[in-house]
Amino acid sequence: MAAQAIRILGLDPGLRRTGWGVVEIMGSRLRHVANGVVGSDGTDDLARRLLALHDGLGEVIAGFSPDEAAVEKTFVNKDPVATLKLGQARAISLLVPARAGLRVAEYAPNLVKKSVVGVGLAGKEQVQHMVRLLLPGVTLEGPDSADALAVAICHAHHRGQRTLAEAVR
Amino acid sequence: MAAQAIRILGLDPGLRRTGWGVVEIMGSRLRHVANGVVGSDGTDDLARRLLALHDGLGEVIAGFSPDEAAVEKTFVNKDPVATLKLGQARAISLLVPARAGLRVAEYAPNLVKKSVVGVGLAGKEQVQHMVRLLLPGVTLEGPDSADALAVAICHAHHRGQRTLAEAVR
Repeated sequence: MAAQAIRILGLDPGLRRTGWGVVEIMGSRLRHVANGVVGSDGTDDLARRLLALHDGLGEVIAGFSPDEAAVEKTFVNKDPVATLKLGQARAISLLVPARAGLRVAEYAPNLVKKSVVGVGLAGKEQVQHMVRLLLPGVTLEGPDSADALAVAICHAHHRGQRTLAEAVR
Repeated sequence: MAAQAIRILGLDPGLRRTGWGVVEIMGSRLRHVANGVVGSDGTDDLARRLLALHDGLGEVIAGFSPDEAAVEKTFVNKDPVATLKLGQARAISLLVPARAGLRVAEYAPNLVKKSVVGVGLAGKEQVQHMVRLLLPGVTLEGPDSADALAVAICHAHHRGQRTLAEAVR
């Protein structure tokens, strides 16, 4: 009997650009489905920018029908204005899959890197390199979507444990 | 000929409690329509909390059909974790009216206080007192909804200027 394929949507939130990546797991096999970036126009007001991210991510979910979602936990920046912007973008990355009925997991950046590269302090290039190795044939739309695929891969590794942890809660 | 009534939704964002207030202006007359608070359960995960705020504000908009919305600009806190939380809640306050096709104005807390109390450095009690004076007969659901009504009143005072500013842009 074949194992059921599970589609995971990974998101790397940002107000200007939110990276997204969809992978499929079937047993221990990992397969790339799609990746990309949804953006917002920096000259628009904040409400319209958040709406653009909302609508863009809504299209991704409608187009690829993921079963679960994972979002990178925000790095609290020293710059409070940047932290606030990121928080606002991040809310959209959490909200849109939740509205679609998906469970949304959150992972710290270090755990994402550790899951993909093997160490918590890896550079962007290393993450991209490993994402390419783990998802043969993938064409990366950019660093944001590489990070989003890394979050999806991280969730693929940890979702079993999470489900178990939630079951015994 | 009677002037057309305009309904304004004011929002005071917060992750645990987002205050909302609806006022109506007709010429220079101001009338209270409704106020309240939508909340989220602190034991839920962040995605579900944002979804609760989203659904609650969606019901408010469906129930009271405002024409315009105004949101208090976030005070950038010294505590980055608090700033991040507020930013996430605030994104929902901006997104939900934008999704409903409303124009969303943003006002700094000091301007809100100045519009309602006359000075920028007013306490919560002063704001509540002036909101009660400006909206006779109002029953305030709490300090968060008083602040939300203050934002709506601030927008009632400034919307003409904003529209003008946007027209000559």
